[in-house]
Amino acid sequence: MRTEDVLPKLRELGFEEGDAAVLADHFLEAERRGKQGHGLSRVDWLASQELDPSARPERITAVEGFERWAGRGALGYLTLAAVCDAQIESPPDEARVVVASNCFPTGMLGYWTRRLADAGLVAALTATSPARLGHPDGSPPLAGTNPLSIAIPSSDGAPVVTDVSMGRVTYGDVIAGLAPEKELVPFGGEHGHKAFALAVGLQLLVDALAGDGYGAVLLVARPTADPVPALRRAAGGARLPGDGGTKA
Amino acid sequence: MRTEDVLPKLRELGFEEGDAAVLADHFLEAERRGKQGHGLSRVDWLASQELDPSARPERITAVEGFERWAGRGALGYLTLAAVCDAQIESPPDEARVVVASNCFPTGMLGYWTRRLADAGLVAALTATSPARLGHPDGSPPLAGTNPLSIAIPSSDGAPVVTDVSMGRVTYGDVIAGLAPEKELVPFGGEHGHKAFALAVGLQLLVDALAGDGYGAVLLVARPTADPVPALRRAAGGARLPGDGGTKA
Repeated sequence: MRTEDVLPKLRELGFEEGDAAVLADHFLEAERRGKQGHGLSRVDWLASQELDPSARPERITAVEGFERWAGRGALGYLTLAAVCDAQIESPPDEARVVVASNCFPTGMLGYWTRRLADAGLVAALTATSPARLGHPDGSPPLAGTNPLSIAIPSSDGAPVVTDVSMGRVTYGDVIAGLAPEKELVPFGGEHGHKAFALAVGLQLLVDALAGDGYGAVLLVARPTADPVPALRRAAGGARLPGDGGTKA
Repeated sequence: MRTEDVLPKLRELGFEEGDAAVLADHFLEAERRGKQGHGLSRVDWLASQELDPSARPERITAVEGFERWAGRGALGYLTLAAVCDAQIESPPDEARVVVASNCFPTGMLGYWTRRLADAGLVAALTATSPARLGHPDGSPPLAGTNPLSIAIPSSDGAPVVTDVSMGRVTYGDVIAGLAPEKELVPFGGEHGHKAFALAVGLQLLVDALAGDGYGAVLLVARPTADPVPALRRAAGGARLPGDGGTKA
């Protein structure tokens, strides 16, 4: 899949211009950040899935500190795009929890939190996916790789964006042929029980709030402080998460 | 420090009966769960700190989806106890973000999230602490061990409670003489950059919302689903986080 083929291929799959542009931008940005598993390989993967390109997510609850969205058959990418648009158009006075049900796949979560940080908002986002991680001591697969991404805007113009999957490799890496499926275990080696616990906790958090199906939970807030510049100074030359093409 | 000496010692430090009971219960529960670093060793540690046992936390903002608390010189344990009491007394309609500034030390975060889950609420809690973790490729200490605890109530009566510190060991383990300080690095070995990124992200999340000083951020919500029993069934006999004395 070449870069210039992405948009035509997405239109061919039935996506209208705006949705195809959202999807293409996500896939191409994933490639630029070295996350090939969320990049162009996903276009062919989408072509192998049953899709309803005309499906539209719906915001079914909107009160000051809380929103609930339903995917209604739309790709999770498009649901998160709509969620981000809505937060940027109408940011919370202080903080808001957003729950999205039937929201899959969600791609590179740092893509969405970065959009919010670029608009001056603090964001923490997690999302569930098919169970692929077992307990390090042995169990059936019980948890998805369930990443957690946190993005913090900065007065120096460069937000810090963390995006950590709880798998040693991502399923995207497996799809992209970058890792064998047997490496799809909780990261951390002898401390793999910690990554497993994070994956289980995040999954149950989403499941308890979003109900059946894969979903996402977002915390979005207005910052009251600007901690990034001081952290960068303390770091000296060390690269912080989200600088350049980090794979964390 | 013997169990029966905990309450008298805390009273001797100047804490009134109710606060001493809150502190003692936390320390003794940490011992029971095998988290000695948050247990009795902390009583002697407290005795070595400058304390204002009469200080009281204050809730300075309370709207439907958001609360802001200030520690006002109280121990973080006591601030989180007051935060939990307030959520249980007046749970959110859907979800609420609670930010606590000058909230340190906070102890075993799973102790607080379990209290909320036992009251039927979903909880995710993180808190900051002095920078002890450096970048795995080398940097000054930039992030605390910044744990993340998530608790989910269950209709079967036993909530799942995860509580993961981003350090290979906790500072509490160092205080308790259970680990040398040089092991206070991000967990995960060759994937230590992931735990480092989690610690940095959680720290900036708290810093951006709570401002100067160590703080805590809590997401508390009413569940709309009951995912724990199905996860337990899928797990077969495998132990889930928070069952018994897990150290995750």
